[in-house]
Amino acid sequence: MRIAIDAMGGDHAPKEIVKGALAAIKQYQDIEITLIGNESLINEHLTDKTRITIIHTEDKIDSTDSPVTAIRRKKNSSMVLAIKEVKEGRADACISAGNTGALMTGGVLIVGRIKGIERPALAPMLPTFNGDGFLLIDAGANMDAKPEHLLHYGIMGSIYMQKVRNIKSPRVGLLNVGTEDDKGTELTKKTFELLKDANVNFIGNVEARDLLEGVADVVVCDGFSGNVVLKTIEGTALSLFSLLKQELTSSFFNKLAAGALKPSFKKIKSQMDYTEYGGASLFGLQAPVIKAHGSSNENAILNSVRQTRLMLEEKVVETIKEDVVKNDA
Amino acid sequence: MRIAIDAMGGDHAPKEIVKGALAAIKQYQDIEITLIGNESLINEHLTDKTRITIIHTEDKIDSTDSPVTAIRRKKNSSMVLAIKEVKEGRADACISAGNTGALMTGGVLIVGRIKGIERPALAPMLPTFNGDGFLLIDAGANMDAKPEHLLHYGIMGSIYMQKVRNIKSPRVGLLNVGTEDDKGTELTKKTFELLKDANVNFIGNVEARDLLEGVADVVVCDGFSGNVVLKTIEGTALSLFSLLKQELTSSFFNKLAAGALKPSFKKIKSQMDYTEYGGASLFGLQAPVIKAHGSSNENAILNSVRQTRLMLEEKVVETIKEDVVKNDA
Repeated sequence: MRIAIDAMGGDHAPKEIVKGALAAIKQYQDIEITLIGNESLINEHLTDKTRITIIHTEDKIDSTDSPVTAIRRKKNSSMVLAIKEVKEGRADACISAGNTGALMTGGVLIVGRIKGIERPALAPMLPTFNGDGFLLIDAGANMDAKPEHLLHYGIMGSIYMQKVRNIKSPRVGLLNVGTEDDKGTELTKKTFELLKDANVNFIGNVEARDLLEGVADVVVCDGFSGNVVLKTIEGTALSLFSLLKQELTSSFFNKLAAGALKPSFKKIKSQMDYTEYGGASLFGLQAPVIKAHGSSNENAILNSVRQTRLMLEEKVVETIKEDVVKNDA
Repeated sequence: MRIAIDAMGGDHAPKEIVKGALAAIKQYQDIEITLIGNESLINEHLTDKTRITIIHTEDKIDSTDSPVTAIRRKKNSSMVLAIKEVKEGRADACISAGNTGALMTGGVLIVGRIKGIERPALAPMLPTFNGDGFLLIDAGANMDAKPEHLLHYGIMGSIYMQKVRNIKSPRVGLLNVGTEDDKGTELTKKTFELLKDANVNFIGNVEARDLLEGVADVVVCDGFSGNVVLKTIEGTALSLFSLLKQELTSSFFNKLAAGALKPSFKKIKSQMDYTEYGGASLFGLQAPVIKAHGSSNENAILNSVRQTRLMLEEKVVETIKEDVVKNDA
């Protein structure tokens, strides 16, 4: 299989992207990688060209670019060219750590949707304290969602967790303000009825306070709420850690005690490290399009390639196509 | 002023409720309190009856009761009687640490809405790391909100922060998935236009990740998203603390080092203690109805009384009435 990678996207591009690609090539004998970006900058870090091809381009999409405009105007940007490799059959999937909105727009406009899926969803894996993690679908691709969209998210998420995360019967939960069946908005009430009858292991409504405890393997929600969940977890964790750091370095004595606990703090931080799970997938497209985290390092890119490879090997997109047709029939 | 308190609501009722009422009576000479609940249970803790009256009732609403049914059927419950004290003019405001949904329903059905406010909102103060806190409005009273509802939340929240939290020109932010003006759902886009033209210090869209850093004094959102924010912060903080605890007590050596840091951990926890700000107000009603946290202790009840007293003294409800009419004119 061939994976196209936008070498210029992300805070540490192209260095960490190239290093991640090199690590992936070493680890997986059955993949080939196309790196798209500034060839001379890429070559600075590319110590081995086995099964790696470069497509040179000077242009790239910045994180501050307006997504739709960027995709339409920057036709020679590394991201657009990476997506086009997939569209035109020269790659089976693509990965970018760049502008999330642009990648979503490009995925929909260039790779295209699966027939029957009206609105693709962005789905990152989030860490749980037992280490299993859960899939949050949608985390911000589709703002004004309808019940049918959320039904498809549940089905797609369930397939992903089964195929890629190896969970036999993934527990699908609907994000809501309470666990009782009739809670929430018009959207959640109608979605509840649809998920109840769908061919997934629907466990009912789940509350935001229980997500990190691993209450469900797939958490279904509209893109607005999902984005709020994602950023609230991120903000709360970062704020708490910075408060902790400030407090624990406030005196010589504290520094001493905190120093002794450093391995423990490190362990906690690593338990919260979502890059282990790979990037966020865009579900509902004709091929895997993966958004790696903006701050991706070598390891995060390696994990995104591992995830993409598994999605291809396990035919996630093909299964989604079949199951959505089956469910809607 | 006279404040009616549901003595039977909350995890530590009636003991902590009664103790909180006693503390409030001592601190504020200008208030009288009516405690509603089981007289003999209340009397077990009521060491002083100065300016305190008891209304006896055997019935109470449980936390598991369905809100609407409970309010309609349990007409002699301590909560319904407390709300009726306000409705019938014998009290100026009421407080309960009981069933949130029932209190919201009772507030709307019994006390009644302010003319022009279609949907009341539940608004708790949440802690920020600088200690100022912010008002989250709505945290779950109104599930399917319209732009006009959110406009009123902005106005009501701004008045509260000005009058009760003493902020001259409260910064009103709209919860959204990005800070750019055109972000979000149909709801947030329309609300943005309304808030822009309203007589509040509207600072635009704010993201969930920045809330605990104090990005705004009032954060406006629909009840579903607000509830998700509230519970995600709660869940993330609790999960992190329990992970920390587990890790720091995992060995003798760790316990020793962690013991030395105990005052620091305590300080951080107290910075996150939202009971200092009082309870969550129900805005848009004809009188202050305050929801104290379910786990309220004496101090939380005292703080809720302080907050209620300030709302009465500063004529928050009257100002809301005037400003909403003015804005809609």
